[in-house]
Amino acid sequence: MKKIINTPEKFITEMLEGIYAAHPDLVKFAGGDLHCLVSTKKIPGKVGIATGGGSGHLPLFLGYVGEGMLDGCSIGDVFQSPSAEQMLAVTKEIDSGAGVLYIYGNYGGDILNFDMAAEMADFEENIHVESVVAGEDVASGAPVKPGAKNTRRGVAGIFFVYKCAGAAAAKMLPLDEVKRVAEKVCENVRTMGVALTPCTVPRVGHPSFELAEDEMEIGMGIHGEPGIRRGKLMPADAIVDEMLNKIIEDLPYQNGDEVAILVNGLGATPLEEQYVMFRRIHQVLSEKGINIFHTYIGEYATSMEMAGASISLLKVDDELKELLRFPADTPFFKQFKY
Amino acid sequence: MKKIINTPEKFITEMLEGIYAAHPDLVKFAGGDLHCLVSTKKIPGKVGIATGGGSGHLPLFLGYVGEGMLDGCSIGDVFQSPSAEQMLAVTKEIDSGAGVLYIYGNYGGDILNFDMAAEMADFEENIHVESVVAGEDVASGAPVKPGAKNTRRGVAGIFFVYKCAGAAAAKMLPLDEVKRVAEKVCENVRTMGVALTPCTVPRVGHPSFELAEDEMEIGMGIHGEPGIRRGKLMPADAIVDEMLNKIIEDLPYQNGDEVAILVNGLGATPLEEQYVMFRRIHQVLSEKGINIFHTYIGEYATSMEMAGASISLLKVDDELKELLRFPADTPFFKQFKY
Repeated sequence: MKKIINTPEKFITEMLEGIYAAHPDLVKFAGGDLHCLVSTKKIPGKVGIATGGGSGHLPLFLGYVGEGMLDGCSIGDVFQSPSAEQMLAVTKEIDSGAGVLYIYGNYGGDILNFDMAAEMADFEENIHVESVVAGEDVASGAPVKPGAKNTRRGVAGIFFVYKCAGAAAAKMLPLDEVKRVAEKVCENVRTMGVALTPCTVPRVGHPSFELAEDEMEIGMGIHGEPGIRRGKLMPADAIVDEMLNKIIEDLPYQNGDEVAILVNGLGATPLEEQYVMFRRIHQVLSEKGINIFHTYIGEYATSMEMAGASISLLKVDDELKELLRFPADTPFFKQFKY
Repeated sequence: MKKIINTPEKFITEMLEGIYAAHPDLVKFAGGDLHCLVSTKKIPGKVGIATGGGSGHLPLFLGYVGEGMLDGCSIGDVFQSPSAEQMLAVTKEIDSGAGVLYIYGNYGGDILNFDMAAEMADFEENIHVESVVAGEDVASGAPVKPGAKNTRRGVAGIFFVYKCAGAAAAKMLPLDEVKRVAEKVCENVRTMGVALTPCTVPRVGHPSFELAEDEMEIGMGIHGEPGIRRGKLMPADAIVDEMLNKIIEDLPYQNGDEVAILVNGLGATPLEEQYVMFRRIHQVLSEKGINIFHTYIGEYATSMEMAGASISLLKVDDELKELLRFPADTPFFKQFKY
């Protein structure tokens, strides 16, 4: 374990102290707890959007709190859910009368705590809370059916949910509309990842799994959850083809569709390699007659120092395109209107 | 060597194909050569700013071509200088009559080729070119003396040179003024890095150096150049203290000074760890009475998958503060006016 930290126990607290020291104009903490991060800007009558989740995924989750995106985030220890009390503290701080939407990834601990927080917000604070649970990793669970429980992990595609729902809230849409937008993105986004090396949770002190020097695992989750298959490391084009075919088949994305793309580095994979991947994505989509509306490339949802990457596709229509184009200004993500 | 590439030989060409496919609205190539990247926007009468250097450092160098920053970049193979002809092709494309400023790092190959390109631009194309060579790594060379040759490596601090000179050019200042700003930043910026793991140049196929599992190297350059000392990996605070003391002594930065800070990840070091480092930087500077104007944290100048980070300080006055605040919009760096 080779990390620039002081002690595993203080890692997340000290990281958070760094965040607040670096961005005092943009974020602050609520309820006297560093783990309850909220935007310094509160707009009366705007729907509040809260997220939350374990640490170790920066810029996910807290990095998207800011103008045009989210209003607050509760922060757990590395790969651990924050508590319901922390979620409630965030909820109370960001509510400005129009209700609060929770958007978070499909993991057991998060669901349990967010559901408890929503109940407490309703009963104790009279805050109307709605929830959208994002799960779009095609390497996990069964294809999503309307009305059925979604068993898929939430991974990098949640960025698109934040982006569109955040823009909808910034445009002062009411809670039911912001929720509808978030659900629409969830229905139209799919992701798949590949891991080349593991990461080490500081408190654990050893890598979360092992991969031989010539191996990769296609479909691995952002906490090292098992993927679809483990095999010899392939050339970039072959890796992209395998991942992209699974993604495209799943929705399915079809000839004539328009998509936004997110190529996401998991931590140690350089931007250069992500662009080599995008080159192939661009070729394959062109061949299939799927049009690219806009491309995001970089580290959006990491797994600390894991090497690997994920690809997300979001099928867009005029409404989602306008929401994607909307400006955003957070400590970790800035976008001019395009 | 575990990388998502097709072949080492095609790595940079395919990376560039990915760049142009992803950002067709922002960048294009000049002279029929993918290695000659220029902005799609050309403003009549604006000083053109060109940079260039080896690949493997994204977002450096090409990532800062865009509004409010640079106009063009010539791109070499991994850790290799581009050719004088490529620099000339960029120069011709970006000149709009107000002359061109070259800003690049202090490396022998780059100096040779940029000097040759400047001569060719002058003699063959009648384009007035001025050059500013950035070298601010306090772990290399002797302290810079006025009039003496600067023997220091250029590393992440060049971001500040691009940012301020880019803003000055965007404000339509003439060539001598943009050059003065670039030189002023060079005089006031200092950087130092630490490496925890090496990276592998694809064509070479093995790591550029070795560090034991419990070792770090303080002061290492972004191509793996030797640093000041190699030793046991220390806690984050001790690493920051050692780096920061060297930086602060060098200018020196003093009680009452105001600084912009760049904490730069070299590739595999997670943002979480960079914020743990910033926490300590904030403490130390507070103790010394050095005020923080603005903080930039993330990957600005990498060494592919190297683990490690660097710290840069820029002493600012009202002029540099206004230029730093100026908006910028490039594929890899976006900033609203602040």
